Amino acid sequence: MNAAPLDLTGSDGFGLEHLPYGVFRRHGECGRVGVAVGEHVLDLVALGVEPAGPFAVPRLNEFMALGPCAWAATRATLQALLRSDERRARTRVESSLVPIGEVELLLPFEVADYVDFYSSLDHATNLGRLFRPDAEPLLPNWRHLPVGYHGRAGTVVVSGTPVRRPRGQSKAPDASAPSFGPTRRLDLELELGFVVGVPSELGEPVPVGRALEHVFGVVLVNDWSARDIQAWEYQPLGPFLGKSFATSIGAWVTPLEALLPYRVAAEPQEPAPPAYLQGAEHWVLDIALEVGLRSAGMAEPDVISRTSSRNLYWNVEQQIAHATVNGARLRRGDLLASGTISGPQAGARGSLIELTWNGAEPLALSDGSTRTFLADGDEVILRGRAGPIALGEVRGRIEPALANGRPGAP
Amino acid sequence: MNAAPLDLTGSDGFGLEHLPYGVFRRHGECGRVGVAVGEHVLDLVALGVEPAGPFAVPRLNEFMALGPCAWAATRATLQALLRSDERRARTRVESSLVPIGEVELLLPFEVADYVDFYSSLDHATNLGRLFRPDAEPLLPNWRHLPVGYHGRAGTVVVSGTPVRRPRGQSKAPDASAPSFGPTRRLDLELELGFVVGVPSELGEPVPVGRALEHVFGVVLVNDWSARDIQAWEYQPLGPFLGKSFATSIGAWVTPLEALLPYRVAAEPQEPAPPAYLQGAEHWVLDIALEVGLRSAGMAEPDVISRTSSRNLYWNVEQQIAHATVNGARLRRGDLLASGTISGPQAGARGSLIELTWNGAEPLALSDGSTRTFLADGDEVILRGRAGPIALGEVRGRIEPALANGRPGAP
Repeated sequence: MNAAPLDLTGSDGFGLEHLPYGVFRRHGECGRVGVAVGEHVLDLVALGVEPAGPFAVPRLNEFMALGPCAWAATRATLQALLRSDERRARTRVESSLVPIGEVELLLPFEVADYVDFYSSLDHATNLGRLFRPDAEPLLPNWRHLPVGYHGRAGTVVVSGTPVRRPRGQSKAPDASAPSFGPTRRLDLELELGFVVGVPSELGEPVPVGRALEHVFGVVLVNDWSARDIQAWEYQPLGPFLGKSFATSIGAWVTPLEALLPYRVAAEPQEPAPPAYLQGAEHWVLDIALEVGLRSAGMAEPDVISRTSSRNLYWNVEQQIAHATVNGARLRRGDLLASGTISGPQAGARGSLIELTWNGAEPLALSDGSTRTFLADGDEVILRGRAGPIALGEVRGRIEPALANGRPGAP
Repeated sequence: MNAAPLDLTGSDGFGLEHLPYGVFRRHGECGRVGVAVGEHVLDLVALGVEPAGPFAVPRLNEFMALGPCAWAATRATLQALLRSDERRARTRVESSLVPIGEVELLLPFEVADYVDFYSSLDHATNLGRLFRPDAEPLLPNWRHLPVGYHGRAGTVVVSGTPVRRPRGQSKAPDASAPSFGPTRRLDLELELGFVVGVPSELGEPVPVGRALEHVFGVVLVNDWSARDIQAWEYQPLGPFLGKSFATSIGAWVTPLEALLPYRVAAEPQEPAPPAYLQGAEHWVLDIALEVGLRSAGMAEPDVISRTSSRNLYWNVEQQIAHATVNGARLRRGDLLASGTISGPQAGARGSLIELTWNGAEPLALSDGSTRTFLADGDEVILRGRAGPIALGEVRGRIEPALANGRPGAP
């Protein structure tokens, strides 16, 4: 029960225009669905939003299953309640607000399939330059289709979950044989993720013009990567253990509806993509993005990259149309991530391998240390903002690897 | 109610030594768990096996959640009941048997993550010879780790589900640009899949010697592949739409316990794998495998390949130890498939691209037609047998692609 009236129009990115959904738990209680409002969580079960069932479970999947009309109606109800100056509505809202410091935030939805795309032109170009310096940086398929692959859904974790430095096989270029140990090239990847709320039918492609009807919302994604493990394992079937130890997502899923006003026209694609990838307009979201890095000795993070989702070449309509053109179905809870988002400027790169040019140009941090890749104790913070909307941040701190010896040893 | 006593020791691969679990539905009823016994399904809900709850749902995940002691106890109970000549037990069993022709078989478990390995030496060597004729057929990493990648869990389907020929982009070697249309190189892949029943903790590798404690059972897998789509898309992140349109699995999950007696010593691995991949013994399962192909005009399938799971270089203990060595967790319902199983003989190859040597050596079928890749109307049937145990077969029939025009058109 709040004594002083709250300024419910107020914000820091979590005002009435936003109202993102998440799953929270108070000590000793079951997880349930809430909405972030300023520095509070609005408890939808306590608030008595109907139907109550889908909010009384520790995942958004049941609410997503109600479909887009229910999502819109719930959002309108919440906005009306939060705007109301009627005493009873005010009391009802205030008695359902929980200070965010009193709750634990859980993974907001159960991930069905996790697809990771590779949709930033500058990122793909940078990696091509780094790994194939004597060849055309972009592979021949890149401008014809949104390259993507499946990641591990089971290791998607919520912001704040510690990330243990993975161990695995790698092989130095000059070594005769691979060796086993903690990764020495632990990286972050700044990505934007779309959450599927409406499934599609097996065998039925989703047309590009109807793709958005399947999207519930948006989260920031840190697709942690162990570059040395990845480099040794990835031929010919793609990344596996170099990516599958953890993928962190924000605790708050921003409704797609809140972000639709922040679509802007994209650069024309050259060559024109095939018909199944041509929407009525080619747009991208205009979300300012940044990567913060805080070493164990720093009080506040340094911002090591500033970029924008405008730098994506392929948009989510195209990604969905592509991912289903072969008849693959979407399921509720599918997570479609953009791939690392980099811009053309050196300071707009979304991974350390790009920011330090494969380690050749270390970053200087404000505590006097330098980084090529992540050190134990480093915390990475991803943030995004579109107008008054702050995407739920993604934090993750690196814990030391398991001690040497066989796996399973402490 | 059966009038004549059934010969419950009898078999055709589904006798007392087997007792695989599946999910079935009678017309108008809810799906539930059953066990295949000869030509019948034993309805575990009707039989009154305790606890009833996990059997009254249309997936095995809840039964798997009870853990290995409950799996063993249930198996022992069923074997005792089926062996009993006591009148009441006999009546109880007989009144719970449903002729298999009266039921629909559903996907037996909800797939969490689907990992596809590449663990057959002959398969990897054959593909290397086909695609890199002037180079060493095996890539440098292959003998050091079980190469694998994540597939699409959401399009794993049960045996009998029709497979629509996928459409997508491909590029002929001599073409200047990619084109869009139905795949012309639709292939099958004969694989063995292991189903995880016991999850592991995030950040905690599963030691090779304890990997089997996580396995519930085994299914045959047909990992359908569109070779032309795959060839164009797969660099640098691996297969995506060339594999994600469908993966068929058997309707019956064979308990691991039933197959443990069919472990045999494997050939020594050279070079010795790293310590985390060295079990106390290096074994493989001895399951005879075959691929049948029946064109629309044939009454019975031709057997186009005969091979064995003995041809796997990496076993499931090693696959699990590898997949978790970076701290990735296992979840209940994870499906770990072996990759295509081929043997050293030409007739022991587990895919058409190998059997026809990339189309250069068409197969002659008994209806007088030939095949390089699959034709519309073809049905593929995978079978496996170890002693008295016949793995649940995997059938899938190819349906024509969607008509031309944009996706979504009928």
